[in-house]
Amino acid sequence: MKARARLSARLPVPRGFRFAAAAAGVKKGGVPKLRDDLGLVEVPGGASAAAVFTSNRVVAAPLAVGREHLRAGGGRLRAVIVNSGNANCATRSGAQACARICAALARELRVAARQVFPASTGVIGVELPVRKILRALPRLLLRRQATPAAARRFARAIMTTDTRPKLAAARFRCGRKRALLRSASSRGQATLLGIAKGAGMIQPRLHLAGQSWHRPLAGVNTGGTPVPPHATMLVYLLTDAAASPATLARALRAACARTFNRISVDGDTSTNDTVLLLASGAAGARIASAADARRFSEALTAVCGSLARQIVADGEGVQRVVELTVEGARAEPEAERVARAIANSPLVKTAWAGADPNWGRILAAIGNAGVPVNPQRVDIYLGSQLVCRGGRAVPFNERRAHRELARSSFPVRVRLRRGRAAATFLTCDLTVDYVRINAHYRT
Amino acid sequence: MKARARLSARLPVPRGFRFAAAAAGVKKGGVPKLRDDLGLVEVPGGASAAAVFTSNRVVAAPLAVGREHLRAGGGRLRAVIVNSGNANCATRSGAQACARICAALARELRVAARQVFPASTGVIGVELPVRKILRALPRLLLRRQATPAAARRFARAIMTTDTRPKLAAARFRCGRKRALLRSASSRGQATLLGIAKGAGMIQPRLHLAGQSWHRPLAGVNTGGTPVPPHATMLVYLLTDAAASPATLARALRAACARTFNRISVDGDTSTNDTVLLLASGAAGARIASAADARRFSEALTAVCGSLARQIVADGEGVQRVVELTVEGARAEPEAERVARAIANSPLVKTAWAGADPNWGRILAAIGNAGVPVNPQRVDIYLGSQLVCRGGRAVPFNERRAHRELARSSFPVRVRLRRGRAAATFLTCDLTVDYVRINAHYRT
Repeated sequence: MKARARLSARLPVPRGFRFAAAAAGVKKGGVPKLRDDLGLVEVPGGASAAAVFTSNRVVAAPLAVGREHLRAGGGRLRAVIVNSGNANCATRSGAQACARICAALARELRVAARQVFPASTGVIGVELPVRKILRALPRLLLRRQATPAAARRFARAIMTTDTRPKLAAARFRCGRKRALLRSASSRGQATLLGIAKGAGMIQPRLHLAGQSWHRPLAGVNTGGTPVPPHATMLVYLLTDAAASPATLARALRAACARTFNRISVDGDTSTNDTVLLLASGAAGARIASAADARRFSEALTAVCGSLARQIVADGEGVQRVVELTVEGARAEPEAERVARAIANSPLVKTAWAGADPNWGRILAAIGNAGVPVNPQRVDIYLGSQLVCRGGRAVPFNERRAHRELARSSFPVRVRLRRGRAAATFLTCDLTVDYVRINAHYRT
Repeated sequence: MKARARLSARLPVPRGFRFAAAAAGVKKGGVPKLRDDLGLVEVPGGASAAAVFTSNRVVAAPLAVGREHLRAGGGRLRAVIVNSGNANCATRSGAQACARICAALARELRVAARQVFPASTGVIGVELPVRKILRALPRLLLRRQATPAAARRFARAIMTTDTRPKLAAARFRCGRKRALLRSASSRGQATLLGIAKGAGMIQPRLHLAGQSWHRPLAGVNTGGTPVPPHATMLVYLLTDAAASPATLARALRAACARTFNRISVDGDTSTNDTVLLLASGAAGARIASAADARRFSEALTAVCGSLARQIVADGEGVQRVVELTVEGARAEPEAERVARAIANSPLVKTAWAGADPNWGRILAAIGNAGVPVNPQRVDIYLGSQLVCRGGRAVPFNERRAHRELARSSFPVRVRLRRGRAAATFLTCDLTVDYVRINAHYRT
């Protein structure tokens, strides 16, 4: 997840995109009128698009609608509409509700409904309040702006249990030769902006292979129980370079495989996880050559890596980010499997909450990963120190270990000595606050 | 996990067994001298034995030694010695330490060392204080008694984070015909007593097939960090019927498959899980016929089921026991897999901690089980009410659901409509106290 491409310190907004946010009243409790819960990304000139979705068997309606729109429109989009506060999952009229919103927005923008990409995040099993959203559309459209402030407001509007908006940007070179014929501003410089949300129910396992994913639910909700928010991961990656949907899809899969698919807050994979990549082409530069594609991929991976880390760092109740590295595996999926077993062990995560250098729990988690590891060949590093060699304790400075583990982030390195493959993985501690947030009963 | 055989309300002690407990000073903190941490079960006449162990790749020394003793002695044992406070796992001299204790006890009892079965539970990666244990042996031996009080004291001595001892007993008929020729007391009545410990690091996945399990660690601990207790599951099942080791092994595997292998407190499988079954034959009745074997199996399953439930109910921080049933699966392992996914979802478990009828999280967990479930065919019952039909909300009385989920135990039933197989599974909520217990940093 290390960024080869440099991230932009400031927040450049890619050309060809406008952002808006509004309060529709979908989010309940508190002061609903003051909390934005509807976000819009508009691409007036249209954009090529590629997306990946959750591999959960249970899939919310907007994912099915969005995927169908991408297919029907040949990977071209004009707008993205997102509501927070309701996941539109396991609902009676999920697909229709979603289609109505897309159609209404499309009418306003004078485009086809299939050029609108929908998303929802929030409670599951509750009818989406379509009318509230439709009523808010005119206000939303009035606010469209191509500014960093508007992008930030969009980022806030899609939050659920997130405590802060998540953005990252990078610039990259592409299409130099063609750009020379054009204006100075378009001479082969393109911008990529990423916006994400997600804090709990975070172990994205995005389906990256082929077109296989699952049909939506066409629910039967007749007034069931409202439930607390699901913190699905939603990610929007926006570039002003030009690229075909196929080029975007390739780069997106590669970037997701080692960023979003390598994080876990709580090991629960959401029903609504979606990552969408849009290319407006408004910078006048095209991702054409292999070198362009490489630079774009690096920028994309850097932005996705930053967003993935922001998600873990803002995970529900999280005190510390843990940077896991598993080395010496036979193959990368094996290394990832061991990392995931460590990342999702409640006993390992609670030890981290106490900044406790309890490597025994890590060793036990490795033994439970379903990989034929030889414990007598396992080394474990906590922070900067080797604490376990060949499956046994070695002397180390415990005070120093405790101090290092009390930081806001620290590395944990595991060596299996089975082969040469490695994987990195980001995770976090499991705290009293995580339980409090998720055990809170709605009164 | 339903008991076909009736459990005994009182605690009958099977003939041919003596129990003892002592404080060796292995457990640290508090008032070590007052806390028993060494337990003995002696079978003066010897017993047939069978055992099953964890499927974790990392295995503590006493498991390897115990298994080797069983093999070398042809499944005959004279004594069981257990220490709590130290797991003797990932230690330098694990196997030797364990062998020394077995040898010392064997000398005192005038038997071969291979007739002693060792076990340890507690901190990992710390040398076992062998001398403390050896010094306590004479005291331990002086206290041997064949009374319920002694059995209870043994049950207390093997506890770690458990808050109460766990015992269950049943009587069963066997060997009637032979028994007629003997005394009244032996007329085909046998007793089974089970004693268990375990509270956290509890998702036993006992290896039930064949003889394959893993070599012990022969550690290199030169003064590493002491870590908080692991709450391994240890279970001792003692009957005064007579049976061959093969008969015992068959019955034990069948009983474990649907009891201990169907519970989870926190989804972490320990390095030390052990279930040992001993048959002293002192009741003068033999498990010989198919009917005997069936009655014995029923008693064994009832006792194991009771102990499994006691373990979950006394799980770290647990407020409620959740009785999961998954029906309509293609095969029993598939049903079990779905149940395990629900049982180990942090979001499902925290919702239970809040007595929150949040079926959406259960549906999402089912979707993550790795089983090709069709969400549109899934029904979910919480407590006494249907809350989700065909993957969608149905109206239900939410106050009643909340009331039912606030009880000390409640059922959750899931129907997949894929086939006719079903599985039951016991689990619990994930509370703030679980995190507190396990995040406590030793100062």
